[in-house]
Amino acid sequence: MRARTPCRVKTRRVAILGSTGSIGSQALEVIASQPSLGVCALAAGNNWRLLWEQAREFRPEAVAITSPQSAEAFSLAWADAGGRGPEILSGSDAMTQLIRRTRPDVVLSGVVGTAGLAPTLAAIECGATLAIANKETLVMAGAIVMPAARAAGVPVLPVDSEHSAIFQCLLAGRRQQVRRIVITASGGALRDWPAEKVRQATIQDALKHPTWSMGRKITIDSATLINKALEVVEAHWLFDMPAEQIDVVLHGESIIHSFVEYCDGSVIAQMGEPSMATPISYALSWPERFERQVPPLDLAALGRLTFSALTGRFERAVRLGHQAVDRGGLAGAVLNAANEAAVQAFLAGRMRFGQIVPMVETVLNQTPPAAEVTLDALLRADAWARRQVEQRI
Amino acid sequence: MRARTPCRVKTRRVAILGSTGSIGSQALEVIASQPSLGVCALAAGNNWRLLWEQAREFRPEAVAITSPQSAEAFSLAWADAGGRGPEILSGSDAMTQLIRRTRPDVVLSGVVGTAGLAPTLAAIECGATLAIANKETLVMAGAIVMPAARAAGVPVLPVDSEHSAIFQCLLAGRRQQVRRIVITASGGALRDWPAEKVRQATIQDALKHPTWSMGRKITIDSATLINKALEVVEAHWLFDMPAEQIDVVLHGESIIHSFVEYCDGSVIAQMGEPSMATPISYALSWPERFERQVPPLDLAALGRLTFSALTGRFERAVRLGHQAVDRGGLAGAVLNAANEAAVQAFLAGRMRFGQIVPMVETVLNQTPPAAEVTLDALLRADAWARRQVEQRI
Repeated sequence: MRARTPCRVKTRRVAILGSTGSIGSQALEVIASQPSLGVCALAAGNNWRLLWEQAREFRPEAVAITSPQSAEAFSLAWADAGGRGPEILSGSDAMTQLIRRTRPDVVLSGVVGTAGLAPTLAAIECGATLAIANKETLVMAGAIVMPAARAAGVPVLPVDSEHSAIFQCLLAGRRQQVRRIVITASGGALRDWPAEKVRQATIQDALKHPTWSMGRKITIDSATLINKALEVVEAHWLFDMPAEQIDVVLHGESIIHSFVEYCDGSVIAQMGEPSMATPISYALSWPERFERQVPPLDLAALGRLTFSALTGRFERAVRLGHQAVDRGGLAGAVLNAANEAAVQAFLAGRMRFGQIVPMVETVLNQTPPAAEVTLDALLRADAWARRQVEQRI
Repeated sequence: MRARTPCRVKTRRVAILGSTGSIGSQALEVIASQPSLGVCALAAGNNWRLLWEQAREFRPEAVAITSPQSAEAFSLAWADAGGRGPEILSGSDAMTQLIRRTRPDVVLSGVVGTAGLAPTLAAIECGATLAIANKETLVMAGAIVMPAARAAGVPVLPVDSEHSAIFQCLLAGRRQQVRRIVITASGGALRDWPAEKVRQATIQDALKHPTWSMGRKITIDSATLINKALEVVEAHWLFDMPAEQIDVVLHGESIIHSFVEYCDGSVIAQMGEPSMATPISYALSWPERFERQVPPLDLAALGRLTFSALTGRFERAVRLGHQAVDRGGLAGAVLNAANEAAVQAFLAGRMRFGQIVPMVETVLNQTPPAAEVTLDALLRADAWARRQVEQRI
């Protein structure tokens, strides 16, 4: 009997974009526990205090802070504390410069919104492995990012738990053998609410996610189930899969993170406790796996896993993803931007919860045609969709 | 978007040992639906009528019938019907001769009991891929079969649904990254019976399996849960895994066929409707997958999957498998033979249901030590265990 040896992963220099956010912080925890990983670059928007603490601990070669004032504050704080600090970049293209300057092995992109797009393209340019936690990058610009990554031979590793699950399940067969992929949905904070009550749900109601602890925007997306629409588009790009081969099923416990059905009837699922640390760890260790101190998955203690079909408002929300994939062109960018604007309006108390999905649907249905899908056209579609939402509130 | 192309598997000549049994018949159904598979050899014990029908349909080059009388009847029936028939082999080494004569690409062994052992070794000798549905081969003689297969570079593919599941789940990582494998157990026909009632269960009671349709012996093994003890030993040999890394969990619906937990906390499971056709198909298509007309797995329609820990009589039965692995030597052979003899006695009305597990336990605990694990020593241990059971009834 062969003794078990620990998993080995060769040393990697990691850049984390959005290091002060939920994904970024969890990624740093994973990195702290893995001697084979080092942090070469950190980037944040304006939370310079947390970035400073992270930089003291992980000693990156450079940091990027979008806000110049925050960059200044960071720099002063470092001078106060003494010691040689990291190079500090700031301004709107700071993350892109950060990547070009530090040339990481892996870029983990956890920034929210369209800000993640340019640095992602820079990472591809530098040949870095992409670990994408930034949904918008693919939902909006999959048509640009994926061909660029393929052309550069850059692996694109999903950090979303669902897509990480699918990625792992796809190891059990070949792409042509896949009949469909099935994304699981917890149903979000308002899963069991009656329809008429859901329409009036408050911000606090919608932020009480039953299984996942995540940022505010994503938690609202979980409650509307638009997160699953975005994930359908993301899966389309990541796995080169048409909309009709991507299904969604409700699974309240979030233990099965997603599954793949093969052409022979065999279904491969990936499971685990709902924790982003697992997909983050997988993306940073791929194609190996880290040895981690995680309690074994105790299905007997859980007792049961439940499933139900999408109906009513859930079905309506998820269908937006299929529509965006089928429309193609600028539809992904419109879906993403209209949703961001609508969620923002909801969180600002300017829109009711029940208006988010219908609003996104209306704007998506009016997606302008595109002669060519360029970065510029996508950014214009993004701005157009946000304006549409504003005008309709 | 790339169009889906059907799965392609290169043409294979298959020999089916035990073609008239439950696994054999289902294997022929799979083969009938796959143009890339041909039958070069069929073997049965004495059911010459069914074998004759199978031979008319699949046109093997040769058949083996252990019983000389049945072989004679088969031959006469063929002469009556006219046309050039297959070569007919009979006698106790007929299956071994059959393999040597036809030199198949794949040997699917679905014979019950120790009769499967010699032809399995012949298949390895001939370099045929092994598809093993015959638990006894590995439980009894894994110490001989696996090293022989490895030395010959012969792939060993499990046809048991649980082991097929594990085999597929292992594609998502490397062996050193496996923390444990978990075999699911339906709990068998008497799962929810109170302990005192179980002891007195009749043959009919024990044969009512809730989810799987299988042969009589295996259905009784499911009711005692000794099938899981045998599967622990089988998993040990197939996947080179120590007993403490093999767990069993009750899962009444038999939808998750087994799962693998990796060192990073990620769990990969294989699922599907309870049908032996899927693992048979996988073993015959490996490393590809056949395109099959199987309805999609509808978890929403199932509603839920349940799990519970092994306790009481279940735990006692499964522990026999761990003990057999830990003991090593002849223990697997003793476990298998003592169980076969006890089940036989139960099916003959000579023993109560509740006596099967304690009987096997007693005999296993007295496994004689072995200086060397040879085929001869294993066969002697097998006979010894059967005598022990007889003497104790």
